[in-house]
Amino acid sequence: MALDARYERSRALVFAAVQSVLVIDGVAGLTTDRLAAVSGVSRSTIYRNWPDLAILTCEVFEELMHRDAVDFTADPVQALRDYLVDYARRLNDATYCAVLIALIEASSRDDIFADVHRRTFSQTRSRAADIIRRGQEQGVFRADVNARVGVEDIVAPFLYRRLVTQRNISARQVTELHQRLIGAWSPPS
Amino acid sequence: MALDARYERSRALVFAAVQSVLVIDGVAGLTTDRLAAVSGVSRSTIYRNWPDLAILTCEVFEELMHRDAVDFTADPVQALRDYLVDYARRLNDATYCAVLIALIEASSRDDIFADVHRRTFSQTRSRAADIIRRGQEQGVFRADVNARVGVEDIVAPFLYRRLVTQRNISARQVTELHQRLIGAWSPPS
Repeated sequence: MALDARYERSRALVFAAVQSVLVIDGVAGLTTDRLAAVSGVSRSTIYRNWPDLAILTCEVFEELMHRDAVDFTADPVQALRDYLVDYARRLNDATYCAVLIALIEASSRDDIFADVHRRTFSQTRSRAADIIRRGQEQGVFRADVNARVGVEDIVAPFLYRRLVTQRNISARQVTELHQRLIGAWSPPS
Repeated sequence: MALDARYERSRALVFAAVQSVLVIDGVAGLTTDRLAAVSGVSRSTIYRNWPDLAILTCEVFEELMHRDAVDFTADPVQALRDYLVDYARRLNDATYCAVLIALIEASSRDDIFADVHRRTFSQTRSRAADIIRRGQEQGVFRADVNARVGVEDIVAPFLYRRLVTQRNISARQVTELHQRLIGAWSPPS
């Protein structure tokens, strides 16, 4: 194999290993030894390419965040629904959720994690804020909806449900939240 | 010292050690060796009294949850404010937050943690649900406010803010959320 192909193969194996170790053993299981055992990639290769496991975990998370990124439709009401469906799908994914929790856990103590955490969540937030802004421009959402609070209303309920009640988010709950938000944000007719 | 007094002293030292290890090193740092080093209590005493570190961490969390428990006033509007102030104070506490995150992290993989997690949060939720129910009985909150959704509206925003944006909750944010909830729940006048 060419060097690049060999690197890509190791990368895919190691990234998959980070995900499964986080799901099975959590942050505490993340060691170079364990990643080598799970991935089949040698310790020295892992150490050479990813000397810092915090940075490696962040790369894995960023890749997960951007995987299957959805393009939202122009209609803000439908785009809000697409956003909620996509967000619920991500949170319902055990791997995504495990990596997210690992990131939250590590962020409280490690600046590298905290930076990635802030960056990825500010992307999530800005996509939600865009939908609110577009809805206001088109007159389907009230002009006095505060974008910061509105974004929280979109993302906080599902995050709470997954992390605290630890249940999957159902299709019905997506529909309910969508209707509540539209109800609260529609201009008086 | 009498046996009981000796146990209480070890208990206080070990509980404090669990909290500081979680704040400094997170879940990954929780080992009997580390707790012995931080608390000054011998490994054998720790092992004898708390053979399972998961159960120990859960006990620490339950104690934290019940510390300084507030009695809410009879007036539902004021009680809701007291609840939000108390909840913000807890989440702003670095130790409480670190232990909460450790619990969330461990709950996804460990049934003992998941049980405590569910139990403590169902207490938190039922206190919030009580306030909503009382407000409805007294006619200050609309009868059609769904208690389950209402509880989420109370607890989700601050949890999201602390875990995701990782900022402290300000007094102004407590006032804002209180006003928003009261605004949404007040019967049409």
